[in-house]
Amino acid sequence: MNGPEASPFLAACRGERPSRRPLWFMRQAGRSLPEYRAIRGTGSILQAVKDPALAAEITLQPIRRYGTDAAILYSDIMVPIAAVGFGVDIKAGVGPVAEVPFRTRADLDRVRPLDAEGDTPYVAETVRLLVRELQVPLIGFAGAPFTVASYLIEGGPSRTYTRTKAMMLGDPQLFADLLARLADHAITSLRAQVAAGARAVQVFDSWAGALHPAHYERHVLPHSRAVFDAVAELGVPRIHFGVTTGELLGLMASAGADVVGVDWLVPLDAARARVPAGTALQGNLDPAVILAGWDATRAEAADVLARNGDHVGHIFNLGHGVLPESDPDVLARLAEFVHAQPVPEAGP
Amino acid sequence: MNGPEASPFLAACRGERPSRRPLWFMRQAGRSLPEYRAIRGTGSILQAVKDPALAAEITLQPIRRYGTDAAILYSDIMVPIAAVGFGVDIKAGVGPVAEVPFRTRADLDRVRPLDAEGDTPYVAETVRLLVRELQVPLIGFAGAPFTVASYLIEGGPSRTYTRTKAMMLGDPQLFADLLARLADHAITSLRAQVAAGARAVQVFDSWAGALHPAHYERHVLPHSRAVFDAVAELGVPRIHFGVTTGELLGLMASAGADVVGVDWLVPLDAARARVPAGTALQGNLDPAVILAGWDATRAEAADVLARNGDHVGHIFNLGHGVLPESDPDVLARLAEFVHAQPVPEAGP
Repeated sequence: MNGPEASPFLAACRGERPSRRPLWFMRQAGRSLPEYRAIRGTGSILQAVKDPALAAEITLQPIRRYGTDAAILYSDIMVPIAAVGFGVDIKAGVGPVAEVPFRTRADLDRVRPLDAEGDTPYVAETVRLLVRELQVPLIGFAGAPFTVASYLIEGGPSRTYTRTKAMMLGDPQLFADLLARLADHAITSLRAQVAAGARAVQVFDSWAGALHPAHYERHVLPHSRAVFDAVAELGVPRIHFGVTTGELLGLMASAGADVVGVDWLVPLDAARARVPAGTALQGNLDPAVILAGWDATRAEAADVLARNGDHVGHIFNLGHGVLPESDPDVLARLAEFVHAQPVPEAGP
Repeated sequence: MNGPEASPFLAACRGERPSRRPLWFMRQAGRSLPEYRAIRGTGSILQAVKDPALAAEITLQPIRRYGTDAAILYSDIMVPIAAVGFGVDIKAGVGPVAEVPFRTRADLDRVRPLDAEGDTPYVAETVRLLVRELQVPLIGFAGAPFTVASYLIEGGPSRTYTRTKAMMLGDPQLFADLLARLADHAITSLRAQVAAGARAVQVFDSWAGALHPAHYERHVLPHSRAVFDAVAELGVPRIHFGVTTGELLGLMASAGADVVGVDWLVPLDAARARVPAGTALQGNLDPAVILAGWDATRAEAADVLARNGDHVGHIFNLGHGVLPESDPDVLARLAEFVHAQPVPEAGP
C-alpha cells in the first residue's frame, strides 16, 4: 500500500528502514511551479490560506508533479500572529512585515492567545480537505518562537537581527515573555493541525542560526523545547529546522526533535556527528544547485547520499526552500534519481 | 615604545606574547562615528577613497577615539575592479552594484589586469600619508576572489548567490578564469599597499561562508591560496576573514593565513580546535551585542576572552563589521575593558 501507514517518510523520521528513500522539498509548493502561478492570484499569502480549497490545491500540486513522500501544508509561519491581530502582512518580494513593531512590554497586549478554531478555522479545514485526498502524510508546521519574534521586533526581514538581539540581551524578561506567548501559539496551532489529520510537524526556526550557541541555549531553546514537549503526546514525528545552524544542531535535537533539518553548509556526515544517535536528519542539498542544471544536481545529490552512508534515518530534502527561479523539471529528475537509489540495509 | 615594532597586534598575529591584548574593530571607521558623518560627504565610497587626505583622516578617527591596536585603510574591496573599468558602484544602503553583471566569457574582457600605480595611485598615497602619522600598524586589505566575483555575477548583494553558484557548478572553467583574474587584482593591490607601508593584510572573503565546504575547497580555495602565496614573501601577517565560515575555518587557514577571522556563531574555543596549532584567531564578539548596551557588552566580551583561555595568538575584534547604529561610547568602553585584562602568560 502507498498510504501514510506504509510511508517511507514516517519510517525514516522514526529511524526505521523505509521502503524507498523518502524525499520532499521545502517550499515545494510555490512560485517555481507554473501551475501555482496560474492559480495563486495576487493577494497576500495570508489571504490565500483563508481559502481552504485554494490552499489544498496548492499543497497538492507538487505531489502530483514530483511524487514527493510528504506534503506540507500551504500556510505561513505568521498565520497565528496575524490571526490574533498583531498587525502583520507578508509583502511580495519582501517577507513578513509588522507595521508597528514589538518594542515595549505594552506590545504584549497585541500577542493574545490563539484560539485555533475561532481565529484560524481555515487551517484545520484545509488539513481535513487534504487528508481526504493525500496518499502521503501531510506535514503541519509552525514558526519557532524566536524566528516569529524576530519579525515582530525588527518589523521585517533582517540580515543582522540587531533589535532582536538587543532585546534578548538588554531586556531578557520581556524577550522571554514574548517568546513564551509565541510558543503557546505554535503549540495551539500544531495541536489543531494534528487533530485535523497532519501526520508530522515541522518547527521552522529559520533564523536561529544567527545566534551564538550560548545565546540560543539560554534565551531561545527553552521556548522551542516547550513547543516540542507539548506536541510529544500527539505521537507524530517532530522536525526542527533552521539555516546556518551548524553550531546549534545538537541543541536543536535536544529540544525534543525526532528529525533535525540540516542546511547545505554542514556536510551530512559532519551533521550526523553532532546529533544524538537515533536522531534522523533531513536535507541537505544547496537549493542553488538546482539552478546549475541536472548534471550538477545529480552529482551533488549523489554526494549528499554518499555522506549519509547507510543511515536509514534520512529524509532527502534541500537545505532550505526551493528557489523561485528553479526549473521544476530538474526537481522532477532529482526526485526520480533519489527514489531510484537503493535503500540502506541497516544502520541507525 | 608604542610604534609598530612593539605592536601587540603584530605580536599576536605571529603567535607571540603581546604587551597588551590587541584589539581593533572591523569597520571601525564608518557611519557609527559622528566625526565620520561630519566629513564624509554624500558621494560613493569609491569617490571618497580617491581623496587621500580624506581617506587618511577617516582611517585615523577611530584610532584617536578608541586607541585600537591597528588601523585599517579606509577603502573598499571593489576599488580594484572599479578601477579597471568593469562598471561597479557602491550604492548607499545597498552595497556594491554592477550595472551590467558578469555572465559570459566575453565579460572577461572587462576584468583586465590592475596597474596599481596607474589605476589606483590614491591607494598607495593614502597609505603613505597614514604611516607617517600612525603609532600602530596599518592593515591593508583586498577582497577575496570569490566575494568580489559574487557581486559581479549577481549584479549586487545577494542572500542566495544563485547565479554565482550556478556558474561555479555549471561553467566551472569560466568561474575559475574570473577568480584567477580577481586573485591577480588582489595580489597587485596588496603588494602596492605593503610597499607603501601597510604592516599586515586582511583578505575579506565575507560571503565564502555561503558555500558547502567541498565547493569552497574545489572552486574557491585555490584562488585564495594564490593570493596568500603571492604575498607571503612580503613578510607581513596575513588575515583571512569571512562570516558563516564555521565549516571552512580549517580550509581558510590552509590557504596560507597566519590569522583566521572568526564570526560570532562559532565559540572561540570551538574555532581554535578547527585550525592548526600556531594559527592566530581574530574575533569574535557579535556586533549586535554593542546595541544591547555596556553591561551586555562587557559580559559577552568576557565570554570571548574566557573561551580564548591562555592563547596569546588572539586579536580581539567583532565577528563582523561595526553596525552603523552602534554607540561609540560602548565601543570605547569595550576597548578599555579588553586592554585592561591581563595578557596570557603562555600557550600557543
